Amino acid sequence: MTEFSPGLEGVVAAETAISEVDGANGRLIYRDGYLIEDLAPAVGYEEVAYLLWNGTLPTKAQLDALRKQMSSARRLNDSARGALLAMDPQTDPMDTLRTIVSAQGATKTLTKPTLDEAVAITAVFPTIVAAAYRRRQGKEVMEPRADLSHAANLVWMMEGSDPPEDRVHFVESYLVLLADHGLNASTFAARVIASTGSDLTSCVVGAIGALKGPAHGGATFAARTMLDKIGSADNADRWMHEAHARHERFAGFGHRIYRTYDPRAKILREMAKTAAPDLHRTAARTEELALQILHEAHPERPNATNVDFWASVVLTGAGIPKELFTCLFATARVAGWTAHVLESLADLRIIRPASVWKGPEPGKHPVPLAKR
Amino acid sequence: MTEFSPGLEGVVAAETAISEVDGANGRLIYRDGYLIEDLAPAVGYEEVAYLLWNGTLPTKAQLDALRKQMSSARRLNDSARGALLAMDPQTDPMDTLRTIVSAQGATKTLTKPTLDEAVAITAVFPTIVAAAYRRRQGKEVMEPRADLSHAANLVWMMEGSDPPEDRVHFVESYLVLLADHGLNASTFAARVIASTGSDLTSCVVGAIGALKGPAHGGATFAARTMLDKIGSADNADRWMHEAHARHERFAGFGHRIYRTYDPRAKILREMAKTAAPDLHRTAARTEELALQILHEAHPERPNATNVDFWASVVLTGAGIPKELFTCLFATARVAGWTAHVLESLADLRIIRPASVWKGPEPGKHPVPLAKR
Repeated sequence: MTEFSPGLEGVVAAETAISEVDGANGRLIYRDGYLIEDLAPAVGYEEVAYLLWNGTLPTKAQLDALRKQMSSARRLNDSARGALLAMDPQTDPMDTLRTIVSAQGATKTLTKPTLDEAVAITAVFPTIVAAAYRRRQGKEVMEPRADLSHAANLVWMMEGSDPPEDRVHFVESYLVLLADHGLNASTFAARVIASTGSDLTSCVVGAIGALKGPAHGGATFAARTMLDKIGSADNADRWMHEAHARHERFAGFGHRIYRTYDPRAKILREMAKTAAPDLHRTAARTEELALQILHEAHPERPNATNVDFWASVVLTGAGIPKELFTCLFATARVAGWTAHVLESLADLRIIRPASVWKGPEPGKHPVPLAKR
Repeated sequence: MTEFSPGLEGVVAAETAISEVDGANGRLIYRDGYLIEDLAPAVGYEEVAYLLWNGTLPTKAQLDALRKQMSSARRLNDSARGALLAMDPQTDPMDTLRTIVSAQGATKTLTKPTLDEAVAITAVFPTIVAAAYRRRQGKEVMEPRADLSHAANLVWMMEGSDPPEDRVHFVESYLVLLADHGLNASTFAARVIASTGSDLTSCVVGAIGALKGPAHGGATFAARTMLDKIGSADNADRWMHEAHARHERFAGFGHRIYRTYDPRAKILREMAKTAAPDLHRTAARTEELALQILHEAHPERPNATNVDFWASVVLTGAGIPKELFTCLFATARVAGWTAHVLESLADLRIIRPASVWKGPEPGKHPVPLAKR
């Protein structure tokens, strides 16, 4: 029995070759040993998904085959479509995603997770996210287009018109950067579920639920909300100092693992300059102040900007409304979730930790209890 | 960084006062210090749920209030009803449960888990399970009845006729015995999801997915399937030795925590005599042989019968078809899942373990990668 480590901090729960967060050195390594800063500018989402699932980047033929497989798996089946239409259009899009992924993946008997299922689940996320968005707007749900890339089709289904290239590029870069990140809480949830021998849809549905929390995927929304409140670079100084005086937490700063600047945040910060120049100015000033205030208050802590902060600016520039930010995160991470589940199958052992009892010992109650 | 413990065996992941599995002594302690063998004969499911949620058994007035609250929360809302009717009636009932609980709990904005939500989610499980069952049979879905107890209403909604008292008793006893069990995999999944600040429905939906696996809730089904294959007490000797020679695992034996006889299995074994006398005979002979064969093969291992083995016999006697066994398990455990989530809110910290990298170090690939 090991000592209690709240939040399992520092407890090794898996060996993995899917990705590695080297927090001390600010490195994110994707499968097969790619540094995120080398990989991200060079590949699209389908390539990264292939890499995470298969262990190497695809050849041209392999990539074409995956694109074809994904684009033909974009449609909702009857259960999922019916469930989608039954839901209140104003539902939190993450709840819609959780429910419709569950419906889409429902089967008659228990199936062991497969690569084909991973491809199919990943392929259908944009369809559900875009449908949730359009229903919230009171707009007709668009059918997916097989001739577009994963990212371009997502923007197309949201907008219902040909997607501008630069916005597709921002969305795609975001999806690549967020596709995996070690044993984060949602990925860990997926692995816990997989460990009982459950199916892939159950793993992904659980991971969606975990991602939804503000301490995880919900943080991008919180960062953008903070930037909205600040409003402009000129207002940042006053707002940040007042918020600090109120003991408010700055959204978008701090991370369990990184002791230095998150390499994804670095890439997104640069991208934000062209994606959303105005918001970038506000964000840059906000970041400067946040790091300064946090360093003064806690000089011992590493107060680095996290990915959520700059992701919120780039997604804004990509035309993604903030109520969809967590869904976009899920759309990126599902490749990682499914890759982790598939990896875990090789040595499946139920994840069943111990607990420490802090209740009373038996004996204080009269036994047997009177039947009420 | 602690050493890698596969399956987090022996790693303390939480302090809890909801329940304690004292494996060394074969004791299961429920909240406030009740031994399961004292508590189970004396209380119904609503009382145990109250205990797990609130920390004490209810007074008569508190119990009446909870019964009223639960019976008025049994109906599906429009989203859930619509989603249910959209699903293929032949869907695995656990997939239906996962999807419809998700739809029923969908909200417009993120809500923090509350006791009222725990009550409502727990109350609606029998409605979904019974509806899934009746749709599979091609029968009309029954509306819940507010005048019946949680267990009686479940049997009523499945059967569509007044539930026989003894069968309700077996179902209720099962629900009480299975209502919580320390930090099992599905409860842990719920706590991981809760740790990000997510909502209660997300936690429960993830837990359903984890329970589904054959190494967890699916084991009761597997035990019954094995007993079906054995067929009779007379056939047990031949079947068990042949299965052992084939290196087949005996379903219903072994547990991560118990080093001695599971106290719940003991209670269910006794109950099985009246619940299903014929199946009890087959099961008793099977158990005898299993323990003997396993002890000969692995004298060093504690090969105690687990709860799933005898639960499969009692549920059979209660008239529950085996394809619903895992759903019944979920219907019991949801009180525990929600109690654990509510408990975890007092000191919420994201559950984010570490991992060990087993992929290649960066540097083996030419950088930058050529844009494909």
